[in-house]
Amino acid sequence: MPALSPVAVLGLGPMGRAMVRTLIAAGHPVTVWNRTRRRADNVVSAGARLAATPADAVAASDLVILSLTDYQAMWDVLDGATGALAGRTVVNLSSDTPDKTREAAAWAASHGASFVAGGVMVPEPMVGTELSYVYYSGDTEAFDAHRATLARIGEPRFLGDDPGRAQLMYQAQLDVFLTTLSGFMHATALVGSAGITAEQFLPEVMRLFEAVPAMMAVDGVEKLGARIDAGEHPGEAGNAIMMGATADHIHATATSVGIDTSLPAAVRGHYRRVIDEGHGTESWTRIIEGMRGPQS
Amino acid sequence: MPALSPVAVLGLGPMGRAMVRTLIAAGHPVTVWNRTRRRADNVVSAGARLAATPADAVAASDLVILSLTDYQAMWDVLDGATGALAGRTVVNLSSDTPDKTREAAAWAASHGASFVAGGVMVPEPMVGTELSYVYYSGDTEAFDAHRATLARIGEPRFLGDDPGRAQLMYQAQLDVFLTTLSGFMHATALVGSAGITAEQFLPEVMRLFEAVPAMMAVDGVEKLGARIDAGEHPGEAGNAIMMGATADHIHATATSVGIDTSLPAAVRGHYRRVIDEGHGTESWTRIIEGMRGPQS
Ligand SMILES: NC(=O)c1ccc[n+]([C@@H]2O[C@H](COP(=O)([O-])OP(=O)(O)OC[C@H]3O[C@@H](n4cnc5c(N)ncnc54)[C@H](OP(=O)(O)O)[C@@H]3O)[C@@H](O)[C@H]2O)c1
Ligand SMILES: NC(=O)c1ccc[n+]([C@@H]2O[C@H](COP(=O)([O-])OP(=O)(O)OC[C@H]3O[C@@H](n4cnc5c(N)ncnc54)[C@H](OP(=O)(O)O)[C@@H]3O)[C@@H](O)[C@H]2O)c1
Repeated sequence: MPALSPVAVLGLGPMGRAMVRTLIAAGHPVTVWNRTRRRADNVVSAGARLAATPADAVAASDLVILSLTDYQAMWDVLDGATGALAGRTVVNLSSDTPDKTREAAAWAASHGASFVAGGVMVPEPMVGTELSYVYYSGDTEAFDAHRATLARIGEPRFLGDDPGRAQLMYQAQLDVFLTTLSGFMHATALVGSAGITAEQFLPEVMRLFEAVPAMMAVDGVEKLGARIDAGEHPGEAGNAIMMGATADHIHATATSVGIDTSLPAAVRGHYRRVIDEGHGTESWTRIIEGMRGPQS
Repeated sequence: MPALSPVAVLGLGPMGRAMVRTLIAAGHPVTVWNRTRRRADNVVSAGARLAATPADAVAASDLVILSLTDYQAMWDVLDGATGALAGRTVVNLSSDTPDKTREAAAWAASHGASFVAGGVMVPEPMVGTELSYVYYSGDTEAFDAHRATLARIGEPRFLGDDPGRAQLMYQAQLDVFLTTLSGFMHATALVGSAGITAEQFLPEVMRLFEAVPAMMAVDGVEKLGARIDAGEHPGEAGNAIMMGATADHIHATATSVGIDTSLPAAVRGHYRRVIDEGHGTESWTRIIEGMRGPQS
């Protein structure tokens, strides 16, 4: 069996460490670097080689994976290592805005490096498991060259050559996830006001999550997507006025039991806007148009 | 086979009509009333008997189901029919705040009626299907007497004698559902800014929903619930600072592509509050404490 290709990983937060452990377990030689040196101890015991500087880490591998808090950290780390970048592939798996990501791709190109941006779609304990998947976009050739190695982290899903696109897909899913978490927490606080515990409430919420796809579209999500893309929002079931009344009740209940109202106010605002603009008899999906349009 | 017990249904919006069709299909004699008479046509063709007044409808059955926009509508409809209420069971399946619901129970009692409040947890096209379930709370004896009939609509889940409790459970789940829908719509607008269509995005979101339980708690939701109830928020994976950085990125991205920022601002606010109060290294679940506490 030929030796597996070497990988450099810069950034050893929980996510970076999880990736290093996964790559080592798969048999890749891994060189690591981290600003705070002691955070490397754990992965060094597991078999990683610790580089003295970012430049040394970069020089150790054609594939340079970054797992940092944001894109500014990439510049902080690599500004002193630009001489080592030429001909290598930088795969930045840090979160930031699509704009910053496109800026980084141009910066990498100016130093002769290929650039691929990615977003890991699972929390770090799930890295390397069957459930793990990662969006990528950017340099197609560079991505293809390293696809097999990257697949260790999670199933790679390539979204094309705009480096901002994977980031946007990642942000968008995190948008759904974080909003859903806030919704869950808010609802837990709501039932808590009547003595229903989180332990009692959580199984009910899980049951609801299972039903969400069917509740979103009785005729299936494919048709729902096609309707949204066509700007069609038929309101036979679940029109904005009806659901807006529910949003009003939730806001009123949150107010009356004395818990956070910022979240239900935002949700209520989405329905009110559609209703105020005269589209209340259309489906709740009509809200998307208002979200896209100019914001007041 | 003995004849099935009669049911009165007042309120023939989409939900009322779905319930009437389901009850008729099961073989119950159903008497209906609706403010706007022509909305009864459809269910009358299906076999329902149309009452001339709310009092006539109430007089037709021991079990009086209300499916109205809110609780004020109950008073509007039944204020002229209070003489017919004594000895009957009013099951109000309309949405409103828990306070209004408790007020209605007291009002019904003052007219000699038993009162049960309920919340149908599925959209009307799913009424009567295997997926349908309905929370109830209030008069236990009255509920038990009609449980079999109510089970036609959906699996009944009784939550005890506080009539506000079913309403709160209903509101809380709708809170999760509506917040999740707004999150989905916001994210769809977000990816739309880079030309990703709803049809392309929706399957990815569905995949995410499947992973949400695992993403919320790698060690299982039972343990998550127990930790929340104990006020324990260990932040090893997914601490508030880390997730707050993501919330910042989402807000920044929404701002930069020019879509709605009200929703990501609310979510970002939840993380900021926890971080500002010095709990940033704890889990995201710490947010619940702030949501429960006094609101600024
Ligand atoms: N953790 C997850 O479950 C998860 C899931 C999906 C995506 N992600 C994303 O993956 C990335 C890394 O996640 P993480 O959880 O490992 O994050 P983290 O705990 O914030 O770790 C970040 C790493 O970035 C380094 N860093 C930050 N600012 C720096 C700077 N100015 N200069 C040099 N190094 C700097 C830190 O170094 P020090 O050790 O010296 O502080 C650390 O190694 C983030 O963008 C995150 O959004 C994480
Ligand atoms: N539809 C669903 O999928 C669904 C799902 C779960 C729960 N629910 C809840 O079930 C209830 C009914 O839902 P729906 O979709 O059928 O709602 P809807 O379309 O708002 O129908 C409401 C009914 O209430 C009547 N009504 C409203 N105000 C009235 C008043 N002041 N006096 C007399 N009648 C009045 C309407 O009469 P008119 O015909 O004369 O206007 C209509 O029959 C709501 O509380 C809703 O939140 C609905």
